[in-house]
Amino acid sequence: MTIEPFDAVQLITIKRDKGELSTPQINWMIEAYTRGYIADEQMAAMTMAIFLNGMSRREIKDMTMAMIASGERMSYPGLGKPTADKHSTGGVGDKITLPLMPLVASFGVAVPQLSGRGLGHTGGTLDKLESIPGWRANLTNAEMLQQLKDYSGVICAAGSGLAPADGKLYSLRDITGTVEAIPLIASSIMSKKIAEGTESLVLDVKFGSGAFLKDIERSRELARTMVALGTDAGVNTTALLTDMNVPLGLAIGNANEVRESVEVLAGGGPADVIELTVALAREMLAMAGMPDVDVAANLHNGKAMDSWRQTIAAQGGDPDAALPVARETHVVLAERDGVLLDQLALPFGIAAWRLGAGRARKQDPVQHAAGIDLHAKPGDVVRKGEPLFTLSADEPARFARALEALEGSYVIGDAKDYVARGPLVAERITAN
Amino acid sequence: MTIEPFDAVQLITIKRDKGELSTPQINWMIEAYTRGYIADEQMAAMTMAIFLNGMSRREIKDMTMAMIASGERMSYPGLGKPTADKHSTGGVGDKITLPLMPLVASFGVAVPQLSGRGLGHTGGTLDKLESIPGWRANLTNAEMLQQLKDYSGVICAAGSGLAPADGKLYSLRDITGTVEAIPLIASSIMSKKIAEGTESLVLDVKFGSGAFLKDIERSRELARTMVALGTDAGVNTTALLTDMNVPLGLAIGNANEVRESVEVLAGGGPADVIELTVALAREMLAMAGMPDVDVAANLHNGKAMDSWRQTIAAQGGDPDAALPVARETHVVLAERDGVLLDQLALPFGIAAWRLGAGRARKQDPVQHAAGIDLHAKPGDVVRKGEPLFTLSADEPARFARALEALEGSYVIGDAKDYVARGPLVAERITAN
Repeated sequence: MTIEPFDAVQLITIKRDKGELSTPQINWMIEAYTRGYIADEQMAAMTMAIFLNGMSRREIKDMTMAMIASGERMSYPGLGKPTADKHSTGGVGDKITLPLMPLVASFGVAVPQLSGRGLGHTGGTLDKLESIPGWRANLTNAEMLQQLKDYSGVICAAGSGLAPADGKLYSLRDITGTVEAIPLIASSIMSKKIAEGTESLVLDVKFGSGAFLKDIERSRELARTMVALGTDAGVNTTALLTDMNVPLGLAIGNANEVRESVEVLAGGGPADVIELTVALAREMLAMAGMPDVDVAANLHNGKAMDSWRQTIAAQGGDPDAALPVARETHVVLAERDGVLLDQLALPFGIAAWRLGAGRARKQDPVQHAAGIDLHAKPGDVVRKGEPLFTLSADEPARFARALEALEGSYVIGDAKDYVARGPLVAERITAN
Repeated sequence: MTIEPFDAVQLITIKRDKGELSTPQINWMIEAYTRGYIADEQMAAMTMAIFLNGMSRREIKDMTMAMIASGERMSYPGLGKPTADKHSTGGVGDKITLPLMPLVASFGVAVPQLSGRGLGHTGGTLDKLESIPGWRANLTNAEMLQQLKDYSGVICAAGSGLAPADGKLYSLRDITGTVEAIPLIASSIMSKKIAEGTESLVLDVKFGSGAFLKDIERSRELARTMVALGTDAGVNTTALLTDMNVPLGLAIGNANEVRESVEVLAGGGPADVIELTVALAREMLAMAGMPDVDVAANLHNGKAMDSWRQTIAAQGGDPDAALPVARETHVVLAERDGVLLDQLALPFGIAAWRLGAGRARKQDPVQHAAGIDLHAKPGDVVRKGEPLFTLSADEPARFARALEALEGSYVIGDAKDYVARGPLVAERITAN
């Protein structure tokens, strides 16, 4: 890069004026930004122009591939099993990775699940697993490969070597109001997932009040964009559009979500968590060459639980250890007889965050025992004085602000006013 | 600003989503950016959002007033004369300020003309005047006021104390592809002009190939926005939309433009320069309470020339000194008999810049004798072998790149193919 083939203002101007950037221009842009030749303020103007003027499918693919090229690309030499992975765009009470990984691994399909931590009202898989005493998130590539060979499943922290351009760009988008741009979300997610080296990928793209994108239309556009990107890059990719208007399951937090996941692996647990876990596992297994297996069977015959115990133990965790319990709880009771008409995911996510289950800044710790346990779901009959949900926190001072977030977020009414929800899995999106 | 009433991402998001920023939000944004609480990358995202989604008249006014409030606001205590000023959006061969200031001053109207230097293909008034031996651009406020009292006219450098937020924002726009946004251009120009303290202002808004904005529609929109802004801020403001497809006059450079200006002040000079100078002077004098004076008379009776000599001398310049002459010249001859059909302003501006008359970076010096002298204008009959224009430079190596810029920029054809140009002053825009 001693001679600059392009300049930043030229490329910004093209996108500003609704033009298309060429492949060499996108490659240069990502490389020059990673190396610091393009300044943050220039990339900020570019991302806002992309946000408002969009990108073509070819541009999004080029951007994704350029971000992958900015770092390491993983592979699993000598593994001898198909690989399949899942990515969720994030929601409230979304612990699905926890039962899903061992369920799929129990069929002998390798699941190399590189995960992140939570930010804001959505939780992070690593935060949840770290409530298990001894469990560690950071593995070397060699440890990860060995665990996949031995037990088929691993959930660990993504190294900073995967798509470093994405890391830099994501931090910039976070402070410049350009997080929600579909081309930028799609290339950010898919650059990491493709660099991770999986052969198959199922995307759980959420819509609704607790999702990153509220509208199903925009979620569908994101899903289609990502499925196309994965397919173009040689990864078998499908997506499910799933409802995130209501929290998933009955637990929102960290330790309590692990508890709920273990219930599912033991053949119990809430119906919605089971349904989504099985639906996603079916996608992964079908892409890995097992379209006809009885997926749910391994939740009942102990095989998924065995896989869970093996993989947790392999990472230093004690699957039999007691999970942390909060010092303080506060129970909210039903104020009347009736039916629970609504339970809005976003305020429950914010409340759990305020209780200490989430973090506002990357460097903040989380309180593993903090969170919310729901005792009723929309459509359930409730009676005056019965518990509706329990808040847990280490400091009682946190309850007031959590309750503030929850004002108006749940409604008890008459049975005639209850409107049944649409299906949890609203659509399935495949490459065309 | 110990408690932050807003945050940058919130304001960026409002403008990104086509919303309107409130007055307190804009005030905070400009103050916080000036003080460094809003980072450059955040302001870059904001300016791109403004570029693409626009601003209401009220928002543009608030932004302008906030930029004025970021610095000093000048006034002329005890001056005892009306004040009037002109601003041009910049063009090729645009030396109009030089004859205009003394012409208006010769009627006893004070002209406090704060000017800038050239950048790129458009020249700067201060660069032109600095080709006069001894003349100095930097005056204190006290010197400026004294000169206005004594001679009614002054052209000097704008101090950095006027609208410092604009200086910071302009530098950012320059590297982020957001220079041409009408709300940002309008607030940038008008914040400086309003802070300068003039009572009346005429805007020369150019359109055409050599102008900043090429389309007359966008130039009209800019003119209307600025006239509204000036009026809202209590400054009598009008605008002329003028044609910048062809260079103004016969001289493009620095010293040669001073020479041409002196010809106009002596009652001669090219018709287009006289026409525009008189048209702008008429606007300024009318707003200053003299709608009926014979403006052109003072170009013929020596009064404008007296005013020129006094004001140049007051700033240390010798009005009788020889102006610098270039070491090298290169004459371009007509290749056939015919009529000069076209002469494109932009390539002539770029050629003069490459000869040394302009600068690429703020800190570069200009060569005062470099430039182009035109010997024919569109519509003129030319004969094979006659000179069309003369290039002047201090280093002969500069001719090749200047000639390269000029390729295809002038056309000699048959008289029947000549299309007469529209009027130089295409429209007049006043407050409604």
